[in-house]
Amino acid sequence: MKLYTYFRSSAAYRVRIALNLKGIAYEPAFVHLVKDGGQQLQEAYHAINPEKLVPCLQDGDATISQSLAIIEYIDETHPEAPLLPADPLGRARVRSLAQMVACDIHPIDNLRVLRYLVHELKVSEDAKNEWYRHWIREGFAALETRLARDVDTRRFCHGDTPGLADCVLVPQVFNARRLNVDLAPYPTIVRIDQACMALPAFQAAQPSQQPDSE
Amino acid sequence: MKLYTYFRSSAAYRVRIALNLKGIAYEPAFVHLVKDGGQQLQEAYHAINPEKLVPCLQDGDATISQSLAIIEYIDETHPEAPLLPADPLGRARVRSLAQMVACDIHPIDNLRVLRYLVHELKVSEDAKNEWYRHWIREGFAALETRLARDVDTRRFCHGDTPGLADCVLVPQVFNARRLNVDLAPYPTIVRIDQACMALPAFQAAQPSQQPDSE
Repeated sequence: MKLYTYFRSSAAYRVRIALNLKGIAYEPAFVHLVKDGGQQLQEAYHAINPEKLVPCLQDGDATISQSLAIIEYIDETHPEAPLLPADPLGRARVRSLAQMVACDIHPIDNLRVLRYLVHELKVSEDAKNEWYRHWIREGFAALETRLARDVDTRRFCHGDTPGLADCVLVPQVFNARRLNVDLAPYPTIVRIDQACMALPAFQAAQPSQQPDSE
Repeated sequence: MKLYTYFRSSAAYRVRIALNLKGIAYEPAFVHLVKDGGQQLQEAYHAINPEKLVPCLQDGDATISQSLAIIEYIDETHPEAPLLPADPLGRARVRSLAQMVACDIHPIDNLRVLRYLVHELKVSEDAKNEWYRHWIREGFAALETRLARDVDTRRFCHGDTPGLADCVLVPQVFNARRLNVDLAPYPTIVRIDQACMALPAFQAAQPSQQPDSE
């Protein structure tokens, strides 16, 4: 498998964690989102992924985009060490937790959105960073409430083995720290992040451990 | 089943389509996103869904949030008339198409984001509407490229029966029309939308047909 990735992309980070949890060796292809005016915007990458976003996975002749779709594909084709529970309600819970980050936090804080704020709407650096933190705080408040109250929350987001929701949560916590979001109001999120980062699969996937890291 | 819904919410619209395609009767509970300063922000709804967003599905004692998680739950518990193909690659394709809208267009144009633009960043009405259209055009350009080139695109997004990707596409086309986005550059999207809207399940789910419609 070949993964188009960028060290700091949190969507790519999710997929790197999932591949590591499955023990799948992959060939990374680096797409630098800043250099050359953004390599993801160049024709060569556009032909692979018209969305002009990372990550993107190639498995044989197939090309798959969208991090959550990629992770479910990996999980279905490599059932060992499942990333989703077996029961429909458990699966719905895990997908919902993952989507709370992947739909309701991350896209609003994505690089292209921040660029639009600055270049088109002439928003200041401070206001841009406050925007970034605002959507994390909104999302984390809801996520903390759900994680703290649900009995299915244990060592990880769902039970005692890491899964899809953890793959998505950890990169968002990384982003929150990078933007100096105060994490004190989210003790359950912080605790689960710590449990994840104790595992080699999560450690090896983090931005600082990537060959394209700066 | 009880569905917390708002006629104009495109995430709720997705779930209404899916329930109709499955032939599942449900009890609607109306959450008005504008009246009373936004009923989704009130304590009563917060206790049901800490995310303060619609839709939300109650099935017996279980409460499920996030439209894509809800639709997959419905599909897993009501396997008749499947909304996802059986093969992992097909499933990945359908999920990816759905997420191109649900992650990369819709959240950036969501009501709470538009409100932040206007109230916090003092963006003009015109600039706000241009923002809305910009993210639709970006997303639809990528989606059109993929749909037009993939052999699996047929009458619907994937094959000749409607599925998850169609449930997500149609409400986004509705939003695009509401904001006067020129759809001429996206002939495949327009064609699939027409095929969907010819079906009673899609017709009955549209905003104008809801009891809470204004």
